[in-house]
Amino acid sequence: MTSPTTIGRLSLYRRILQWLAEEGVKNVFSHELASRGGATAAQVRRDLMAVGYEGNPQRGYSVSGLLAAVETFLDPPDPLRMAIVGVGNLGRAILAFFRDRRPKLRIVAAFERDPSLCGQVVRGCPVNAIDRMETIVREQDIRVAILAVPAAEVQQVADTLVHAGIHGLVNFAPTPIRAPKGIAVEDMDITATIEKVAYMARGGV
Amino acid sequence: MTSPTTIGRLSLYRRILQWLAEEGVKNVFSHELASRGGATAAQVRRDLMAVGYEGNPQRGYSVSGLLAAVETFLDPPDPLRMAIVGVGNLGRAILAFFRDRRPKLRIVAAFERDPSLCGQVVRGCPVNAIDRMETIVREQDIRVAILAVPAAEVQQVADTLVHAGIHGLVNFAPTPIRAPKGIAVEDMDITATIEKVAYMARGGV
Repeated sequence: MTSPTTIGRLSLYRRILQWLAEEGVKNVFSHELASRGGATAAQVRRDLMAVGYEGNPQRGYSVSGLLAAVETFLDPPDPLRMAIVGVGNLGRAILAFFRDRRPKLRIVAAFERDPSLCGQVVRGCPVNAIDRMETIVREQDIRVAILAVPAAEVQQVADTLVHAGIHGLVNFAPTPIRAPKGIAVEDMDITATIEKVAYMARGGV
Repeated sequence: MTSPTTIGRLSLYRRILQWLAEEGVKNVFSHELASRGGATAAQVRRDLMAVGYEGNPQRGYSVSGLLAAVETFLDPPDPLRMAIVGVGNLGRAILAFFRDRRPKLRIVAAFERDPSLCGQVVRGCPVNAIDRMETIVREQDIRVAILAVPAAEVQQVADTLVHAGIHGLVNFAPTPIRAPKGIAVEDMDITATIEKVAYMARGGV
């Protein structure tokens, strides 16, 4: 299986290729992908070997051909069903981004503790009471959940999802979560990242 | 200078210590911080050596003492002035989190392209037209900017900020940004992270 880091870079190349296609660019060299993607050309070529698509030394890669190959590689054969927990500002930002842009990664359900939001449709996604989460995740075969809830709640939410048979968790709460081995977990610590840059910025330019 | 990775972990320990203090916990051992922070006890002890605070083998660390030491280490002596560019859902989520919680990291200005938002105050932060950004960043000595703008705009926004003398950039647009050496840059690629977990989750549990 390809490493998570490589998958992260392929995800980025896919977006770069999409912009190039929108701009009408037909061919691209590995060093151009590298400079837009913050990697080296050798790294790009290594990553694309995983995808099994070959470039041409004179003209580089075909943008449409490579894009199709990366999509086939990254996307699940059938749409993967995802859920989002918490539809505050962060949850809405994620819903807005994913809607229509990733047909193979579908956010099919949202869950909320706030009763005034339950029953609503936010950015095309139905919002359910959080106490129905376990049932709905099982019934709708939801594989991945995005956690945009406060730190104090997130471990309990994660435990419920694990119990419901979730395969992957993306956590935006400012505390890491624990999950059994075999469940894919990524913590995105926005606060730590901002504090890191603030600390480095003090060093002066 | 302490490494960015260590700073990221210290930022997390700070939040864990804050919760422990709120819960009335007086003392904590390195292995307890480790289990809540997703690190090893040896790692925690190494990180805390950078801070220069010593624990007691019998009682562990004093929560209040260690918290104060980590804060003194992480926080700038004078408040660091930050700006946010883009006050859509993501920008608002970040403003809401930082307001009141980090007195030494103050988001003093927001910038927006949408004229209907300019002149408003969002989560306590005044929103300015983006064409005033360079002037305001200089005048108010803003050191760090958080970029929550679309991918197509972000490099130009970053270039303007660099020109205005920014020291650090935190980028949430789904494309990496380039900045001259000496400027602290962190890209937080939410899409890549979600795609990574989705890919790993296909592997099955």
